[in-house]
Amino acid sequence: MGRLISFEGGDGAGKSTQIALLATWLREQGREVVQTREPGGTPEGEAVRNLLVSGAKHWDGVAEALLVTAARRHHWRQVIEPAMKAGRFVLCDRFSDSTRAYQGAGRGVPRQVLDQLLELATGGVLPDLTIILDIDPQLGLRRAARRQDSENRFEREAIEFHQRLRDEFLSIAAAEPVRCVVIDASLGIDAIAEQIRSVVKERLL
Amino acid sequence: MGRLISFEGGDGAGKSTQIALLATWLREQGREVVQTREPGGTPEGEAVRNLLVSGAKHWDGVAEALLVTAARRHHWRQVIEPAMKAGRFVLCDRFSDSTRAYQGAGRGVPRQVLDQLLELATGGVLPDLTIILDIDPQLGLRRAARRQDSENRFEREAIEFHQRLRDEFLSIAAAEPVRCVVIDASLGIDAIAEQIRSVVKERLL
Repeated sequence: MGRLISFEGGDGAGKSTQIALLATWLREQGREVVQTREPGGTPEGEAVRNLLVSGAKHWDGVAEALLVTAARRHHWRQVIEPAMKAGRFVLCDRFSDSTRAYQGAGRGVPRQVLDQLLELATGGVLPDLTIILDIDPQLGLRRAARRQDSENRFEREAIEFHQRLRDEFLSIAAAEPVRCVVIDASLGIDAIAEQIRSVVKERLL
Repeated sequence: MGRLISFEGGDGAGKSTQIALLATWLREQGREVVQTREPGGTPEGEAVRNLLVSGAKHWDGVAEALLVTAARRHHWRQVIEPAMKAGRFVLCDRFSDSTRAYQGAGRGVPRQVLDQLLELATGGVLPDLTIILDIDPQLGLRRAARRQDSENRFEREAIEFHQRLRDEFLSIAAAEPVRCVVIDASLGIDAIAEQIRSVVKERLL
């Protein structure tokens, strides 16, 4: 069986950079790697992502959670599960913890509803390892704003919203230390990459 | 309080024609009427509808149910509930019984999952009256194929699929006779319209 590693954290925490570095390193170790993201990861999921992040649409938290879950169900069955059965490492930019942060802590959707929805998407299965890149939201948002694709309606939320996301990621990590590792994302790219490699070596290889 | 009347039945049963006729008649009786449809009814819901009916996307039944529910939640809160609070009659082309037929009987999604999802969309509230336009699927699909907008991936399902939908609508009607009325949609347009007006007069006016 392969492994699912999710990368979580606020915008601008450096998730995609670190996923690319870990993917390269895992391939050097002779592992097959799939890089993917949520919401998205399939043409169907990417279409849902467009519905969600486009500023023109006004969903409430529950509707957002339903849309994300539809995309996750598809992604899980079409991409993640088959890759894991083939022994691959799946590196996923955001997964269920982002739903708990954005739709739960951010928008107030009850935990029990999010658990029900995760059950529908993955049968309740969680990643084998979750790397939480922790960053002060002020700094993260400044970094994110410099990217070309930064226009999305979550980034335009007030700083208090992003602070709630950060607190939720840290509280998930505290509650599930076997699955989650928190890494200080204000460090340099190489230092972070080295910490991630150590964790993966220790826990999954 | 206003009233929600849903129109259900297979493709080609004549739902939109009958909704237009009932709307005209209700307005003649001095009622305010909102005509809407599912999935859809808001720009957000229509975007979900496009994701669902486009032949390019391959969702399974649970993902379909999640998408429909996201659209329904939005439609309920933005359109249906406000209209009912304002005392209007809302005529909706398809509602929760279509989810039970298409995603439940058609795609095999368990009833309990569909009930959970309806709870998220409307708090479990059902229409005040549901008109089920019952038609033999062979005839209905022939009629639907003559329409310009007939290209959708549900119409391309095998006849057995459409037979299951019909059976489910009839079984819902049998289980909930106070809410549902079955009307023979092979009759002429005026005869059907007259039956619908009688039912509405008797039950809701």
